[in-house]
Amino acid sequence: MTWVASAVDSRYGVENLPYGVFSTPNDSAARLGVRIGDEVLDLRRVAESGQCATCPTCSALRAPTLNAFMARGREVWSTVRGQVQSVLTDPGMEPHIRPMMTPLAKVTMHAPFLVADYVDFYSSEHHATNLGRMFRPDSEALLPNWKHLPVGYHGRAGTVVPSGTPIVRPQGQRRTPDGEIVFGPSARLDIEAEVGFVVGVPTVLGHPAGVDEFREHVFGAVLVNDWSARDIQAWEYVPLGPFLGKSFATSVSQWVTPLDALDDAEITAPVQDPEVLPYLIEKDRYGYDLRLSVKWNGTEVSRPPFADMYWTPAQQLAHMTVNGAGLRTGDLYASGTVSGPAAHQRGSFIELTWGGKEPVTLGDGATRTFLEDGDTVELNATAMGTEGRMIGLGEVVGTVHSH
Amino acid sequence: MTWVASAVDSRYGVENLPYGVFSTPNDSAARLGVRIGDEVLDLRRVAESGQCATCPTCSALRAPTLNAFMARGREVWSTVRGQVQSVLTDPGMEPHIRPMMTPLAKVTMHAPFLVADYVDFYSSEHHATNLGRMFRPDSEALLPNWKHLPVGYHGRAGTVVPSGTPIVRPQGQRRTPDGEIVFGPSARLDIEAEVGFVVGVPTVLGHPAGVDEFREHVFGAVLVNDWSARDIQAWEYVPLGPFLGKSFATSVSQWVTPLDALDDAEITAPVQDPEVLPYLIEKDRYGYDLRLSVKWNGTEVSRPPFADMYWTPAQQLAHMTVNGAGLRTGDLYASGTVSGPAAHQRGSFIELTWGGKEPVTLGDGATRTFLEDGDTVELNATAMGTEGRMIGLGEVVGTVHSH
Repeated sequence: MTWVASAVDSRYGVENLPYGVFSTPNDSAARLGVRIGDEVLDLRRVAESGQCATCPTCSALRAPTLNAFMARGREVWSTVRGQVQSVLTDPGMEPHIRPMMTPLAKVTMHAPFLVADYVDFYSSEHHATNLGRMFRPDSEALLPNWKHLPVGYHGRAGTVVPSGTPIVRPQGQRRTPDGEIVFGPSARLDIEAEVGFVVGVPTVLGHPAGVDEFREHVFGAVLVNDWSARDIQAWEYVPLGPFLGKSFATSVSQWVTPLDALDDAEITAPVQDPEVLPYLIEKDRYGYDLRLSVKWNGTEVSRPPFADMYWTPAQQLAHMTVNGAGLRTGDLYASGTVSGPAAHQRGSFIELTWGGKEPVTLGDGATRTFLEDGDTVELNATAMGTEGRMIGLGEVVGTVHSH
Repeated sequence: MTWVASAVDSRYGVENLPYGVFSTPNDSAARLGVRIGDEVLDLRRVAESGQCATCPTCSALRAPTLNAFMARGREVWSTVRGQVQSVLTDPGMEPHIRPMMTPLAKVTMHAPFLVADYVDFYSSEHHATNLGRMFRPDSEALLPNWKHLPVGYHGRAGTVVPSGTPIVRPQGQRRTPDGEIVFGPSARLDIEAEVGFVVGVPTVLGHPAGVDEFREHVFGAVLVNDWSARDIQAWEYVPLGPFLGKSFATSVSQWVTPLDALDDAEITAPVQDPEVLPYLIEKDRYGYDLRLSVKWNGTEVSRPPFADMYWTPAQQLAHMTVNGAGLRTGDLYASGTVSGPAAHQRGSFIELTWGGKEPVTLGDGATRTFLEDGDTVELNATAMGTEGRMIGLGEVVGTVHSH
């Protein structure tokens, strides 16, 4: 039980404790914080209050991004998390800790970590099947490689932005239905609701990370909105994949949820058939039962279930490195659009509106197929934390601005 | 005329002066240097010898990578280049400058810059046509979008390595001709000889760099070997593009040639038909007459001509940012394989051996289709410098090691 009143019935209780980077009106330096209830605990001040100014962990906690702390490894992550939980539940610590806390409403949030490489997967069978049906109606919905490997590609790390960053509608080339090549603002601006995993501990080039080493390397999870301009993407993507249809912006939550907070959200992942190659076989195969929510101008239009994902984050990590590609601290890899089997579980608007043919109606009676200027999309997720208390994953919000 | 004797008949004379990062046995700190003949001029010592310890340019010259200097912009780049040319041609400066120089043979070279995002284009018409003929023999060799936009995709920035780094043969999945899915070391390991451009001056997210702003943003050029595992790539790349077939390693030269050194290598680029969209139309359309050389275990097997490229680096930059994607200092974008119309001008082994069907014979009588363990590939390039003197672009060397 924590002494922080706003945390008692919150999805940001002591079971959660995500990490972020913030500043305050009185101190504009970006620094690490932990969210507890509706407040932020200043980790730089916690580190400075100790007697260990020179130890690497305290140095990492005084840095302006999470990267140095994430590089320290699981033992340090667990120790620090345990210490934070301890001071937030010991009433005797309140007089010491209270001055290091600031209400969320008074802080400015920043990008939580410096993104090294950004990889986007395509690991929901329902999503891949939906897109296959729409784009290749006369063929098998899933391509032949899809059940043998987690299909993925590299995105643009430099345009990963924190929640709240305005999304400028991209311009680009597209081909009209009668074959004309035109230029202008995207007319089919979409979202992809995804879950991302952040690498803490790097590898050496040439040495793959094994499928059972996921917890050694991955620090935590974020929510991701992989904004997508479907018209730009459709024209450009053959044969080398998506490029400008995705690279204008990818939003991530301001808070990184540590894997330790998701232990009780682990759930057996779907059985894979055909059997995968040995490097993708997990001793303990699990996914995470994260329940996503997609709000469009305030109306919840979808509840994608992450528990259904065919490929797990451990398999994605193993696949991404099996060729010897090195990991760096700050590498971000996202799941691909999370879609469930039901219509109201689809994580992109192209699926929800079936290619723009079936508009959705929002709470104010307005109808939509793709995003209009001024529209706001908000992603949230909940998961089971310890002691039967639900935790929340930080929201991802973005508003579309005209070019 | 320089007073540096080794530079007099060199392709690294005062017309060239590429930048790199080096250390010496006596001083293991990585620092900036300029190559002149067979020697390296220590820019940190040059900066320290001045009276301006606090000016941003001198700080940038004392940094361990080129990034801070590249971020300073064209005016600073030209000023520093002019000053270095001046001291290397004024015999009166020799006593002051000589102690700041080290023979190349005594230095250790490091990665010249920290790569932000890495983009790989596909801009040689001959290369795209050759691959289309091999992979889609019954269709048009070029896909419909190819002449409307420079097709490209993001690669893995974290595995861009400097020349000399050993290349570990990647393992991965592939499909055999009879449809079996197998795992093992790539059996079709290939190269791609390319030219890369390095961004110095960033942009703001949402603000494209115009096609005529190339020289404002781009600092210089490197040679690139985009190692490619063709069997892994062929199985994985539909529908999201190349991933593990490329991400194990991309080699770049240790020396970055400033654009100013390539002024006299500018050449009118090929006429484009059909006409491109306005954002890709250049006031002054030019490419660079760089003559590449590909050596396989010491035998020159190809001489790809960069002058033939259909899409110019200025068009690539404009396209890459037209959707509002921001540029960061250290962004690297490569041309795609450079191939000319003739058989001995092809920049990849899959083209040179026509999919492995026509082996090449090396100088020692050995034949090759794809790379064997122990093989070494060396890329070089020459270009016309000022005053009719040829300059060299730093070599890219890599040796294949077994997994």
